[in-house]
Amino acid sequence: MNRDPIRGAVQQLRRFPGIGEKSATRLVYWLLRAPPGTAGEIATALSGLVDSVKECSRCGDLSGSDPCQLCTQPRNDALLAVVESPQDVLAIERSGEFRGRYHVLHGTLSPLEGRGPDSLRIKPLLERLRDGQVREVLLATNPTVEGDATALYLARLIHPIGVRVTRLAHGLPVGAELEYADAPSLARALQFRRDLT
Amino acid sequence: MNRDPIRGAVQQLRRFPGIGEKSATRLVYWLLRAPPGTAGEIATALSGLVDSVKECSRCGDLSGSDPCQLCTQPRNDALLAVVESPQDVLAIERSGEFRGRYHVLHGTLSPLEGRGPDSLRIKPLLERLRDGQVREVLLATNPTVEGDATALYLARLIHPIGVRVTRLAHGLPVGAELEYADAPSLARALQFRRDLT
Repeated sequence: MNRDPIRGAVQQLRRFPGIGEKSATRLVYWLLRAPPGTAGEIATALSGLVDSVKECSRCGDLSGSDPCQLCTQPRNDALLAVVESPQDVLAIERSGEFRGRYHVLHGTLSPLEGRGPDSLRIKPLLERLRDGQVREVLLATNPTVEGDATALYLARLIHPIGVRVTRLAHGLPVGAELEYADAPSLARALQFRRDLT
Repeated sequence: MNRDPIRGAVQQLRRFPGIGEKSATRLVYWLLRAPPGTAGEIATALSGLVDSVKECSRCGDLSGSDPCQLCTQPRNDALLAVVESPQDVLAIERSGEFRGRYHVLHGTLSPLEGRGPDSLRIKPLLERLRDGQVREVLLATNPTVEGDATALYLARLIHPIGVRVTRLAHGLPVGAELEYADAPSLARALQFRRDLT
């Protein structure tokens, strides 16, 4: 670490993705003028973070407890959303639309980068489906090449079990204007148009 | 603090200016996957920051020592740049063009917000000019209404001492295209046009 405390703090904050020299400098000088204790409170939350976060042995989500809160609170056990990362759990929870359980894969399949099925939490997923409680698996991986491929791979494994397999719908973002919509999303919105009833 | 370590860390990082819920979440999950010790190293730099930073009793800059490095290293004692903030010292140092001393005001005059001359480091500035070493004071406050007003106020105080008073030049940013230049900067660039020799 740099011996100058300001440069040292700037260099540490620059390690964060998306924070460059100028942003880090702005944050450090903000801290120097912030109410007493601010830097210490932020530091305490960061230093305790890694040790206190656990991976849930059931769903694979990251939180302060194992099993996690989402696995222990009453929810719809018949519906299971499979996601790539803990951030995706947060995103779906924010939508307020999902009341089922989660299963976090911690990644996607990527043969080119050497990530095969064994690098993901696929075996624990199949084990969870074995007791027959789950009636629908929502494959909520990202709509990217790797996310789609992973969903396809999982669908082939899950279909024989006799569980319904679904995927998130594509279409126009809410509030978006057609004029500015990206072509693939608009194409999907047309393909999957719904009856107004 | 929130009992959940992830939410707790997100809430702490959200306190930084310009970092919202989504950015803070991204940073926290990045920390959880970063090499061991990363969060601890960042936390250590932040927690030690405020206590180890001192205001230089001579120039008012913030650093790990008093007097600061810029006041003790050999530089041009005849030239003194007056700036609003420690960040401005960094910016001028980055330009590589200045070899004089600095004086940090820690703000600007702003009668509307109740910031009068006594709230700035103006008295120490006049004391520094008293020994006759400084031949030129560069008023490097920002080219804003408040920065300009502060420079004007200081110029009136300093002129009677018989020291040359200068201001940073205005003009086109280097690399800028005329087509996209803001009108006031282009106007100044025209007013202050130079002979090509």
